[in-house]
Amino acid sequence: MKLSEFGIVIGVIVAVTVSGSAQGPRGTDLEKPLVVARQGSFFVGGEKKTVAAVAAASGRGGGAGGEITVNQMYVQYQVPPNGDRHVPIVMVHGCCLSSKTWETTPDGRMGWDEYFVRRDRAVYLADQVSRARSGFDASLINAVRGGTAPASQLPAVLQATNQIAWTVFRFGPVYGTPFPDGQFPVEAADELYKQMIPDLNSQLPSPNPTWTNMAALAVRLNGAILMGHSESGFFPQQAALIDPKGIRGLISIEMPCPDLSADQITRLARIPTLVMFGDHLGDVKGGPANWADSFASCERYVEKVKAAGGDAEMMHLPKVGIRGNSHMLMQDRNNLQLADLVLAWVDRHVESAGH
Amino acid sequence: MKLSEFGIVIGVIVAVTVSGSAQGPRGTDLEKPLVVARQGSFFVGGEKKTVAAVAAASGRGGGAGGEITVNQMYVQYQVPPNGDRHVPIVMVHGCCLSSKTWETTPDGRMGWDEYFVRRDRAVYLADQVSRARSGFDASLINAVRGGTAPASQLPAVLQATNQIAWTVFRFGPVYGTPFPDGQFPVEAADELYKQMIPDLNSQLPSPNPTWTNMAALAVRLNGAILMGHSESGFFPQQAALIDPKGIRGLISIEMPCPDLSADQITRLARIPTLVMFGDHLGDVKGGPANWADSFASCERYVEKVKAAGGDAEMMHLPKVGIRGNSHMLMQDRNNLQLADLVLAWVDRHVESAGH
Repeated sequence: MKLSEFGIVIGVIVAVTVSGSAQGPRGTDLEKPLVVARQGSFFVGGEKKTVAAVAAASGRGGGAGGEITVNQMYVQYQVPPNGDRHVPIVMVHGCCLSSKTWETTPDGRMGWDEYFVRRDRAVYLADQVSRARSGFDASLINAVRGGTAPASQLPAVLQATNQIAWTVFRFGPVYGTPFPDGQFPVEAADELYKQMIPDLNSQLPSPNPTWTNMAALAVRLNGAILMGHSESGFFPQQAALIDPKGIRGLISIEMPCPDLSADQITRLARIPTLVMFGDHLGDVKGGPANWADSFASCERYVEKVKAAGGDAEMMHLPKVGIRGNSHMLMQDRNNLQLADLVLAWVDRHVESAGH
Repeated sequence: MKLSEFGIVIGVIVAVTVSGSAQGPRGTDLEKPLVVARQGSFFVGGEKKTVAAVAAASGRGGGAGGEITVNQMYVQYQVPPNGDRHVPIVMVHGCCLSSKTWETTPDGRMGWDEYFVRRDRAVYLADQVSRARSGFDASLINAVRGGTAPASQLPAVLQATNQIAWTVFRFGPVYGTPFPDGQFPVEAADELYKQMIPDLNSQLPSPNPTWTNMAALAVRLNGAILMGHSESGFFPQQAALIDPKGIRGLISIEMPCPDLSADQITRLARIPTLVMFGDHLGDVKGGPANWADSFASCERYVEKVKAAGGDAEMMHLPKVGIRGNSHMLMQDRNNLQLADLVLAWVDRHVESAGH
């Protein structure tokens, strides 16, 4: 055997081993029926608000004034038979998306929601307040339509285009061109675009009711790990700053980290923290996101939490040898390998540590 | 034993028997873990639309122009291990609601979604186009906000108040007063109100993309029973008029029935049809719904389908001895008893009949 042939053989063996450890043991059991001890949905939070009467338009819309509910958060859950052995995990989606983020991937593979349940975790998917099944407060839209408020008071609705998504989600350097080693299933990008829905967070009160509701949900669950992504990446921390009582772990995926006071850092340092970032952070130019800056801000945050005695980890995937992950890493081709990394972190830092 | 005591004993026996047949066999097996062969979510339909650039507002909203997706329909499903033995059921919610309609009831009992799965049916929950996780087209809102369209072009957003819901959903004759025999769990009405979210159907194109998507979903499933409620009560028929190929049954719950042409009736008469109405149809005065009129229009529809040789049934619950059901009958206290009636109808009229 010549050296070059030997090199090729080695390469094949390594590839098979990596693929085997990543997908082999999973593939064998993920085809089995899923067993769920209990499942369902409920709301957290919500306040009554009195609204004015609205004129009808061609038989639709409108109606008498009265009370509506605003700021409620819809939560859908599955608890596996062994769910009580582990801390429940609350997953919250990012901008312009819904809990669909965590479900079946755009190319039809298993999402993190079911995978975590199959790994004995109770999973709670929350639609952010003012999005999807949580609804939103439409009274300003109706007021402007009815002439009782100026158009300038309309909420700024964020509706991201496919072009924005391609680069902000780091499928590739420019729209239509994927990264050669990209893990996102770009052949199914059209299915991802269907998940992108209007974001009315701009009209939410402060603090964002999703934060308050996440904290309340953790209390209601008698302890939970909060996971956020992108727009909601720092929501676990915001929830913990409102009420840390039920929060046993903070998992933050791909977002900018704000500057916090020493007191805030001290309070957050009491809760184990995992921050995850994918690949190609500096390889997309222009657009509304600057991932290299976001990463740097979160490196500073993790260092501050550590300096305050906290257990915080920055998991930058390329640094642990995992390349090509996009911003939508829970939907990437290696999404279950990444889920295993999260599960291992939970075992080691939240559950074994007795937090 | 005196006659009066005898009467009391008889009464107790009857009560136990009714309760036993309604809840007994169910109670024993509904506590068991749920086994699911496969589950997930996907979209049906959707088209790309080019939108103009939108000015940002205080760092939120806005963005460059480009393409978005509109008219897609989000579908969430569970298939039980024996699901292939039965025809899948697609459930579509009504006005100002989402698929939450079919899930855990406001007072925390099992919804129709899980119950049908436990009765070996594959269940598909669809969020109507322009609602919940299906998203909506926000470009007109942004155009008005940006000054490029007049406020009169804003969509008429239907956001039903609690006061409207109480009477339209027939919890009682006037807001706050329940019917003495009402089946809706009014003590949990606040949880029902949280399900009520803005309805933007007024800005949908014609025909309503939800109809087209429901027809396409039935084809994709290689045969399905379509179920609609209230606003969507006649959507199964509208879908069948667009493309009947995949549609094996039409279940319509509480809606007005439109006048159709003889040709339309002939086409619909090829598909087994169940229409369901609850109680107190004439006992609520005022408000935007007139249930007695709706019932009468559907009686006429059912008679026309029958006259055209079709298999159509009007199931008026008080007529079969089931009293007090509200408009939200899938959430009523006897919701699983009603589900059994639907399942029995499916067995008899769709599956045994070989449709």
